[in-house]
Amino acid sequence: MESPTRTLPAEAAPAPTTFPDSMSSGDFKAAFRNHAAGVSVITADDGSGPVALTATSVISVSADPPLLVFSVSSQSSSSATITSSDTVVVHLLEADQLELARLGATSGIDRFAQRSAWSRLTTGEPVFHAAPVWIRGRIISRMDAGTSTVIAVHALQSNVAGDSAAGDAPDAEPLVYHNRTWHRLGSHSRITTA
Amino acid sequence: MESPTRTLPAEAAPAPTTFPDSMSSGDFKAAFRNHAAGVSVITADDGSGPVALTATSVISVSADPPLLVFSVSSQSSSSATITSSDTVVVHLLEADQLELARLGATSGIDRFAQRSAWSRLTTGEPVFHAAPVWIRGRIISRMDAGTSTVIAVHALQSNVAGDSAAGDAPDAEPLVYHNRTWHRLGSHSRITTA
Repeated sequence: MESPTRTLPAEAAPAPTTFPDSMSSGDFKAAFRNHAAGVSVITADDGSGPVALTATSVISVSADPPLLVFSVSSQSSSSATITSSDTVVVHLLEADQLELARLGATSGIDRFAQRSAWSRLTTGEPVFHAAPVWIRGRIISRMDAGTSTVIAVHALQSNVAGDSAAGDAPDAEPLVYHNRTWHRLGSHSRITTA
Repeated sequence: MESPTRTLPAEAAPAPTTFPDSMSSGDFKAAFRNHAAGVSVITADDGSGPVALTATSVISVSADPPLLVFSVSSQSSSSATITSSDTVVVHLLEADQLELARLGATSGIDRFAQRSAWSRLTTGEPVFHAAPVWIRGRIISRMDAGTSTVIAVHALQSNVAGDSAAGDAPDAEPLVYHNRTWHRLGSHSRITTA
């Protein structure tokens, strides 16, 4: 019995994986050494066990509806689980949570070994207690981008209320990453101009 | 020739246009008040004249191929031009460029009024001279996300070389935005731990 070949329309062809005219990866990295970023720990469990990953790519893209985006490198051990999960928890870290940031950035360890440091939400996602602010959300879109996946998340729930002290705390001191170093924001870093 | 990324729907279903079960926009904004971000100015010209926009949403997602992502709010006057342009320039700002950051964040002004402050690349895009680092890239993907558009850019060119002093400068002091205030990173903000 013959199996006729199908002719795929041009639009259905797989996207090319090469990017001609790219600037060099070295120059690209050098340029981004000038760029700082807030630090988050992203957790998920697709049924194969909890994973945690420190990310400096979380951005808020829309408040109504509440949507955020982040990227995960395919080289990360947590990448497959996060990408295949329905929901994730994004912990937005302050400088006092540097230890948690390092936990999620260290390879070859059990990031959930300290059993008292985390628990599960009633919906199942792992949450680290040290984080002052977390957002639980549903993955609504995934986009391949070179060696990473860009993930869009619809925010469903947070431990922070809009009128709470935590949310409005003027003395919150976020953790920031820049060129392989950790920084603390606060009144000491604030630019005051006339 | 550009190489588009593939957009993978979460469950092969189109993204919903309504978002039931959303957390409130107020709570979402409160949570993100804990999050800091590097500051960029994005310029473009789709043929209708130059536009500039200050953004705190630029993230590096892949170095090889070199890809970055940012989001623009549809409420921005520059949004339509940036979204419809083939190419953009992303200026990554240091604290000394606070004036440029404010320029791109101020409504109702001609952001290109000071003619000596900018010029055009040979490829046509406007570039502000004050920025120490810029990257020119081609838009390869656009994703609607609520009231914003998430844009993926393939980096083609930069004014920084990987082995240059600018790229590796340990004393670069990036501009950071947090909860409506501007911050300068540097040795004063660096966290030193044992």
